[in-house]
Amino acid sequence: MRILVCNVNTTASMTDTMHRAAAAVAGPGTEILSATPAFGPVSVEGYYESYISAAAVLDTLATWSGPEIDAVVWGGFGEHGREGAQELLDVPVITITEAAAMAACLLGHSYGVVTTLRRACPQIEDQLRLAGLLERCKAIVATDLGVLELEESEDATAAAFATAARRALDAGAEVLCLGCGGMAGMARRLTAELGVPVVDGIEAAVKMAEGLVHLGLRTSKINAFAAPLPKARPGWPISS
Amino acid sequence: MRILVCNVNTTASMTDTMHRAAAAVAGPGTEILSATPAFGPVSVEGYYESYISAAAVLDTLATWSGPEIDAVVWGGFGEHGREGAQELLDVPVITITEAAAMAACLLGHSYGVVTTLRRACPQIEDQLRLAGLLERCKAIVATDLGVLELEESEDATAAAFATAARRALDAGAEVLCLGCGGMAGMARRLTAELGVPVVDGIEAAVKMAEGLVHLGLRTSKINAFAAPLPKARPGWPISS
Amino acid sequence: MRILVCNVNTTASMTDTMHRAAAAVAGPGTEILSATPAFGPVSVEGYYESYISAAAVLDTLATWSGPEIDAVVWGGFGEHGREGAQELLDVPVITITEAAAMAACLLGHSYGVVTTLRRACPQIEDQLRLAGLLERCKAIVATDLGVLELEESEDATAAAFATAARRALDAGAEVLCLGCGGMAGMARRLTAELGVPVVDGIEAAVKMAEGLVHLGLRTSKINAFAAPLPKARPGWPISS
Amino acid sequence: MRILVCNVNTTASMTDTMHRAAAAVAGPGTEILSATPAFGPVSVEGYYESYISAAAVLDTLATWSGPEIDAVVWGGFGEHGREGAQELLDVPVITITEAAAMAACLLGHSYGVVTTLRRACPQIEDQLRLAGLLERCKAIVATDLGVLELEESEDATAAAFATAARRALDAGAEVLCLGCGGMAGMARRLTAELGVPVVDGIEAAVKMAEGLVHLGLRTSKINAFAAPLPKARPGWPISS
Amino acid sequence: MRILVCNVNTTASMTDTMHRAAAAVAGPGTEILSATPAFGPVSVEGYYESYISAAAVLDTLATWSGPEIDAVVWGGFGEHGREGAQELLDVPVITITEAAAMAACLLGHSYGVVTTLRRACPQIEDQLRLAGLLERCKAIVATDLGVLELEESEDATAAAFATAARRALDAGAEVLCLGCGGMAGMARRLTAELGVPVVDGIEAAVKMAEGLVHLGLRTSKINAFAAPLPKARPGWPISS
Amino acid sequence: MRILVCNVNTTASMTDTMHRAAAAVAGPGTEILSATPAFGPVSVEGYYESYISAAAVLDTLATWSGPEIDAVVWGGFGEHGREGAQELLDVPVITITEAAAMAACLLGHSYGVVTTLRRACPQIEDQLRLAGLLERCKAIVATDLGVLELEESEDATAAAFATAARRALDAGAEVLCLGCGGMAGMARRLTAELGVPVVDGIEAAVKMAEGLVHLGLRTSKINAFAAPLPKARPGWPISS
Repeated sequence: MRILVCNVNTTASMTDTMHRAAAAVAGPGTEILSATPAFGPVSVEGYYESYISAAAVLDTLATWSGPEIDAVVWGGFGEHGREGAQELLDVPVITITEAAAMAACLLGHSYGVVTTLRRACPQIEDQLRLAGLLERCKAIVATDLGVLELEESEDATAAAFATAARRALDAGAEVLCLGCGGMAGMARRLTAELGVPVVDGIEAAVKMAEGLVHLGLRTSKINAFAAPLPKARPGWPISS
Repeated sequence: MRILVCNVNTTASMTDTMHRAAAAVAGPGTEILSATPAFGPVSVEGYYESYISAAAVLDTLATWSGPEIDAVVWGGFGEHGREGAQELLDVPVITITEAAAMAACLLGHSYGVVTTLRRACPQIEDQLRLAGLLERCKAIVATDLGVLELEESEDATAAAFATAARRALDAGAEVLCLGCGGMAGMARRLTAELGVPVVDGIEAAVKMAEGLVHLGLRTSKINAFAAPLPKARPGWPISS
Repeated sequence: MRILVCNVNTTASMTDTMHRAAAAVAGPGTEILSATPAFGPVSVEGYYESYISAAAVLDTLATWSGPEIDAVVWGGFGEHGREGAQELLDVPVITITEAAAMAACLLGHSYGVVTTLRRACPQIEDQLRLAGLLERCKAIVATDLGVLELEESEDATAAAFATAARRALDAGAEVLCLGCGGMAGMARRLTAELGVPVVDGIEAAVKMAEGLVHLGLRTSKINAFAAPLPKARPGWPISS
Repeated sequence: MRILVCNVNTTASMTDTMHRAAAAVAGPGTEILSATPAFGPVSVEGYYESYISAAAVLDTLATWSGPEIDAVVWGGFGEHGREGAQELLDVPVITITEAAAMAACLLGHSYGVVTTLRRACPQIEDQLRLAGLLERCKAIVATDLGVLELEESEDATAAAFATAARRALDAGAEVLCLGCGGMAGMARRLTAELGVPVVDGIEAAVKMAEGLVHLGLRTSKINAFAAPLPKARPGWPISS
Repeated sequence: MRILVCNVNTTASMTDTMHRAAAAVAGPGTEILSATPAFGPVSVEGYYESYISAAAVLDTLATWSGPEIDAVVWGGFGEHGREGAQELLDVPVITITEAAAMAACLLGHSYGVVTTLRRACPQIEDQLRLAGLLERCKAIVATDLGVLELEESEDATAAAFATAARRALDAGAEVLCLGCGGMAGMARRLTAELGVPVVDGIEAAVKMAEGLVHLGLRTSKINAFAAPLPKARPGWPISS
Repeated sequence: MRILVCNVNTTASMTDTMHRAAAAVAGPGTEILSATPAFGPVSVEGYYESYISAAAVLDTLATWSGPEIDAVVWGGFGEHGREGAQELLDVPVITITEAAAMAACLLGHSYGVVTTLRRACPQIEDQLRLAGLLERCKAIVATDLGVLELEESEDATAAAFATAARRALDAGAEVLCLGCGGMAGMARRLTAELGVPVVDGIEAAVKMAEGLVHLGLRTSKINAFAAPLPKARPGWPISS
């Protein structure tokens, strides 16, 4: 099967990071594809950029001319747009937010999220609330690292993560989620260092996508995510 | 003061409908401006189109070269994007969803929403949930009219509204909200016909915007809606 | 139009404070009236006094012989009685609690309330819960100033407010509400000093009342707030 | 011990009904006292009358010159005022709303309330919500009998109750609460006729009050229900 | 009437502690019986042991050959199994968790629980959530005493309780619950020492059970707690 | 890897059904093991039997002498006991309830559960509530088939499922969960017949378990699910 990992920002090196993390955990028959949006911010930090990225990723999907894909991983933590792709496509579309939170719920009584900037926290709270997954989330804490700073030094990121993680654990979290796609690939190291399970949303989403595809399950099209109605959309898609 | 009413679709006649409804209730010192997005669907029906429209309206605001505005009314009911504008601007940004629901909460113990297609209901539920306004909403019901059908015949729309309204009232709603920007201007007629207050989100948003501006209140910039960080956003804004 | 601002305590100077705050923001065609209850505590601090004040304000409204009014502002933050007035009258009745919280929700992702004594906090929590507006409230904090102390020194009140405000902001609030009618008139100063929007419920309620009246919207009378049934009520109203 | 049952309306025969129901279940060492308010509606139907009754019952308690009492039963279902008495007194104050709902929660997975007029339902919902007891309540349904009609014919009341009860059971309720103090004394008959436990709030409140008094438990005075502060309250109490 | 107090662990001295606490508050006509499970852990600390104890207590009840009982008190705080007994029997079955929390809700605006080990807190949270009683619970805090340590020194237990209680009060609790059956009998002392009502679940459950029995109320058998269906259960009950 | 599927009842043919369903979807490197409890009911229908089964499955795990296992699937829908296994073991333990509900949340805006007897519905509601997964569940409906009746005729089961499914869909569900382990293996047929995704909890749990194991994720042992403390447990395990 083919799983398409969609980065939400236009920084190709971050797409590569996610691609590698996804490929590292993909099953034998799984091919990982990845995509960088055609336009938008180099990092997504805040609602304004999240909405731009939502359109940019939908633009990518609406103009997709690559091989047929079996599932999509939406590679933004707490970002918007997933439901649009669920309308547009029939195959499962999974955000790293939901995948991480669900895995965390399977591993502890409660969980927490460690993310980048403090301004990202309310948006993550929104997305967990909409997903019906907020109740068992005890804390969403910031490292105060910007998205692109994550790429600079893995050690510095791990140290900042550990500091923020302590606050989440003190608030009652028993499992932690990497709260940014740019943290992909760090879960095993952090799990070992912190002594609590740390979930990488990219990894979790790939495994959940593989599972759903294997079971032949696809998005329900009977109401909320029915295909978009045929109509004129002048100027859309952007990349057409 | 100047209030900019942003239509979310690219049908200029619907922008006119909203403009007229807004101007009809604007106070003496208020100038109503309106804008149609530069791209996107002719009507917004579903998540996919809602996310496109979010970017399209943000594109309008990011490239705005008209006179300085004092408040923005986001003219889509249950649509996405408002928080992005709250980041981009300092002035109040009010959706017709929130404005209608708040006015309804001031007028009855509970309220309901009557909207267009059934597929719009989950999305409206999402937006009310995020706004913290879902608890007193007893029902979100569909007329099964498409957005553009609303423009065809006011009598047909009123009849469909009345039929759907009955189900909302039976579910315990005491006040009704017009669940689509395209229904703007019909509240007084429906209030009279149905014997319950019917709130037009365009009208309510204009009055709330006037109030906030008059009180000198602006969006809090200390965290969630802080200004977007300076950075590269290749290809954005679209209309630039 | 005429808006009646009802103080909930029997201290006429506090009625004057509210009247001035209301008049200062009223639109050109709005006449502000105000009323002090005929009986009850000189300040309302706690449930016992809140229930006395509820009856006292309802007594004022039931025996009102002044000019016809178009809306009522219930000038107690977190106090009881509003729904009784909604039954008794047809015109909008707005508490400063709801008006402040709604305005705050339009201006930030979350908000907080700064009030007088600590004992007021649970009661404010109750009223926000009933109004369906508690979800986005991150903190309700006390200045430990009694209601009548507010009148002694505006500087001392501002200082105490600022101290308490810090705790609300640390808890995640992005907008603050003046949590007592006696704080009316201080919002602009505090907004400037604190760098976050501070909402005065008296001011917000006046503008929301003006808006609803302008739109011709009145209380729904179909169930919860239907007019009181005709029946004997020996000894009531008190002032008759 | 002495338990004071406070009727909320001024119809003495209804006070007698409650008194009899309370006395019939009181333990050997319990003396039931009862009180009718000095003023207010002959029946409490709606918010307006509920707030009047709150003040009237508080007036009774504030001017009480009878023997010392050990607990108070607030005899209105869904009515206001209880917290005021909790401030004024040290002894337990229990509403028939809470007592019935708690007993119901001990007897089934979920419960329902059968009350008088439809207009009472939102108010009962409010009080259960504030008491934190709404979650397990599946339905609040009306018999459409006015409070004073309950006294006319026990058979007619039982028949109306049974009809309304059916709707509550269909909604998932497993236990029913008598939703009006005026229904006191009918629980055993209805339990037998309907085949599900029917809880009488007067009876339940008397037994819970006896229990708390026996255990030496009194209202917490550390914050919300601390004694009213000493201050002037001109014209209050009404009966003084 | 006869009330059976079921200890959840196999430490007979703890059964005696509960028996004494129950008997000390039982009314004149009440006989207290008690039972120690035939198998299982000497103290119940965690989910694993809670589920073992659930089966062990159900085994006791399924093989009960003593005199007919009128109510059961489930003597584990936050432990599992109560609903099973509600199916098996017709008489009221009350956990000390629910009884304590309900009594606490009658005595303050909010409450807290002080329990043994930190690992017990999530489980108590679960049971309060299921009982619909979590909303008014402001804190569940641990003394870090193991269940059997409670028996060693009442003074040490009281001291540890006081320390933990302070954290619950700081979090807003106004009433405290003894969060372990092994703390039975300490409520009066702690109430006096702490100046806030402290509720003993054993005591509260006995009085609530007496009340329900006196009122002739029994478990609803119409759905969730209908009698177990007749069928083979090889190897069960264990003690048979 | 080895995944152990634990049936909750003592009917070996049902263990076989689950085993087959699990094996049919297991990945190349996965070995499915299965276990039937040593004691307990032939079918689990209600709380009483659910608690017996919880102890019986924990007994199986506590006495497990087979090959080392990498994950456990708890094969009862809405049944108790999972957290006990999470304490006892380090490897992931996943109920079919959570797995099905999570998969459903990934595939639609809301979901429903179709189960066996009506008496199972409240218990399923409890387990979804505790898992924090109830919010998006629109309906839990019964086929009125007993657990063992499921094995009699697949066509009859499919027909009963379809009838019940209609009610769930009418209530707004967009995805359906097989609400009993005994329905395992029917999802593909029902998905095809009903036109909406139907999730088999056994299948979903196997794929989620495979995913977590592949990612090296294990249960958090820092608090709620820490290993049981060493202590005497006379008579336990039962099968020892």
